[in-house]
Amino acid sequence: MILSKRILEMQESPVRKLVPIATRVKKNGKKVFHLNIGQPDIETPKQFMEAINNYDTRVIKYSFSQGEPALINSIRDYFARDGIIFDEDEVLITNGGSEALTFTTIAICNPGDEILVPEPFYTNYNGFTGEVNVNIKPITTLAKDGFHLPSKEDIVKLITPRTKAILFSNPGNPTGTILRLDEMEMIAEIAKENDLFIISDEVYRGFAFDGLKGISMGSIKGIEDRTVIIESVSKRYSACGARIGSIQSKNKELMKNILKLCQARLCVATLEQIGAAELYKLDDNYTAMIKDEYQDRRDIVYSTLQDIPGVVCEKPSGAFYVVAKLPVDNAEKFIIWMLEEFDVDGQTIMLSPAEGFYATPGLGIDEVRIAYVLNTKDMEKSMYILKKGLEKYNS
Amino acid sequence: MILSKRILEMQESPVRKLVPIATRVKKNGKKVFHLNIGQPDIETPKQFMEAINNYDTRVIKYSFSQGEPALINSIRDYFARDGIIFDEDEVLITNGGSEALTFTTIAICNPGDEILVPEPFYTNYNGFTGEVNVNIKPITTLAKDGFHLPSKEDIVKLITPRTKAILFSNPGNPTGTILRLDEMEMIAEIAKENDLFIISDEVYRGFAFDGLKGISMGSIKGIEDRTVIIESVSKRYSACGARIGSIQSKNKELMKNILKLCQARLCVATLEQIGAAELYKLDDNYTAMIKDEYQDRRDIVYSTLQDIPGVVCEKPSGAFYVVAKLPVDNAEKFIIWMLEEFDVDGQTIMLSPAEGFYATPGLGIDEVRIAYVLNTKDMEKSMYILKKGLEKYNS
Repeated sequence: MILSKRILEMQESPVRKLVPIATRVKKNGKKVFHLNIGQPDIETPKQFMEAINNYDTRVIKYSFSQGEPALINSIRDYFARDGIIFDEDEVLITNGGSEALTFTTIAICNPGDEILVPEPFYTNYNGFTGEVNVNIKPITTLAKDGFHLPSKEDIVKLITPRTKAILFSNPGNPTGTILRLDEMEMIAEIAKENDLFIISDEVYRGFAFDGLKGISMGSIKGIEDRTVIIESVSKRYSACGARIGSIQSKNKELMKNILKLCQARLCVATLEQIGAAELYKLDDNYTAMIKDEYQDRRDIVYSTLQDIPGVVCEKPSGAFYVVAKLPVDNAEKFIIWMLEEFDVDGQTIMLSPAEGFYATPGLGIDEVRIAYVLNTKDMEKSMYILKKGLEKYNS
Repeated sequence: MILSKRILEMQESPVRKLVPIATRVKKNGKKVFHLNIGQPDIETPKQFMEAINNYDTRVIKYSFSQGEPALINSIRDYFARDGIIFDEDEVLITNGGSEALTFTTIAICNPGDEILVPEPFYTNYNGFTGEVNVNIKPITTLAKDGFHLPSKEDIVKLITPRTKAILFSNPGNPTGTILRLDEMEMIAEIAKENDLFIISDEVYRGFAFDGLKGISMGSIKGIEDRTVIIESVSKRYSACGARIGSIQSKNKELMKNILKLCQARLCVATLEQIGAAELYKLDDNYTAMIKDEYQDRRDIVYSTLQDIPGVVCEKPSGAFYVVAKLPVDNAEKFIIWMLEEFDVDGQTIMLSPAEGFYATPGLGIDEVRIAYVLNTKDMEKSMYILKKGLEKYNS
């Protein structure tokens, strides 16, 4: 019994594979600050559980395959605030942004087809595509350019007859980069000229600092039939464990076909949808408050990184991540060393190796992704530990 | 922008595609008894919501990719009652039995590979395999044989070099058939001799009537490394909307690889896992009570069907479905007619056309699947409506 080639070739999650080491050192009494995973410490708005507790839970019934109407309408209202209008059948609820991305990939690509993705990218894009035999073709972006896109020419030359779509997260995970309007318009042009779908992962929308505004791809005119927006409550509403995501597109033929995938798996958890419907009703004050909190955290991380000799990184404008080049030969080895060998008063930190966020072999080996998901006090402590750790590691 | 071949070739859910018609006639005031979908009317045990309400819900955090330890351990204890022992890493929690089946298919099969499935089968097997480019090869079973398996010879001749597994639900959806021990042993033999995985969908285990015992494939010796058991809380614990399923296998290499798929999609909804952990703790008295209730419903359905001229069906021994051949030319047309044109005092019923449960073209056109998921009073009323409807349709 040989397992499938597609599963054997799939990488272990670089974000989660070091977790057993962390679990072990924590059992031995060490405190670990987790900057390795995008799990915010912010409380989930209480409206979530209130809605569940007010729901009739006598029989936990199947929901609709397309999603609970209350949630679909909340999401429609959320987009409408920015003048982006979706009909009822232009929103499909999914098991997190994860399933939204897998379903979109299946619907757009046959085995062997390709999707362009600016790298470094959210590492699980490898999983959502690889498990259904679709290949990612990376558009390399560089720290020195703030991880902004290369020229149109450089992108277009990567397109082959098998290229079906361009996929990106904006604001970017792991880079924290927010696309400029001219970059979004360039993507639109490339997509139109080469007949590609645009898959815009906007789960960090709202996390835009320094007065920037995170613009949805849904605002760009003339590409409505080829734009697919991926949404999730995980980050914006600190409800990662709810596993509520969604697909938005004005391409009704696409949505009608993705609905078949939704029907096959019957529905998304009913209670979590009832709760999530309330989250999307939270007004702009909520988003602004969250944004301010993360901007403070970003400032702490960035100013400490600036202070450490040999560290290279650009100031991130959004999301809650930063990619930093460290003065080490191998970031993964350093991360393991920090867990196993180092502590400040019994405390240490856990980071993610950035190598897994690149598709091009050899890139990111000396880089880490830092998720600034802890409160400012813990972030200050964590960054102090990083600084001391690097000093000792290199001495 | 052309969509993928795999999505275009996927069928619409035959169970869910007639739902818009039902929705319309209900809006116009007609009462519809839903015998078309396996949504029981039994209350979800209150332990489910109690556990959720006692959980710390301040931050709805990611769960573990493999699942909540409390739920994994509950499931292990559930199997241990029958002497089936799984280690902690031999159980993976999934988004319903649906995701369990998709993940198992991806891990075992490359595009173009085949899985043997006795037909008629749970129609969504088409989705879980087709969406990842795997083909179902049907083993036709017949109503006149009570939908039991054909001879070993007849099954073996369907195997090709691309056949990777044999998949079946036991007790059977839509047939209600429970495999005899000699059939299970024949499957084990075939799998060993032809190096196949055995995917045993046991989400209806416990629904076994007339003194029969639903035996898990996990009890069959000598095939532990090739047996994969699919579980779910949906039916046994009437928690369809919780979307909690699981994969069980003693093949650690397989499980280690499926864990990569689990990691890519991060986790299953946290709260629902906390609730489901309590469901698996319910003792055999609960299962016995549920079984008695469904046996009563089965008796009502079967005795009425026996009474209607021209109806052919075998007495089902398990699950909560029966496949019946009706005296009509086209069952789907009849189902639509019952919804749109017929009622008894403003009430009608909705059934599922059985054609979608067959892979062989032409089979099942005059058959329906009846889900006896309503209380005995409603089932009596529903079956009376079916009888009257057939009389009028054929007059």
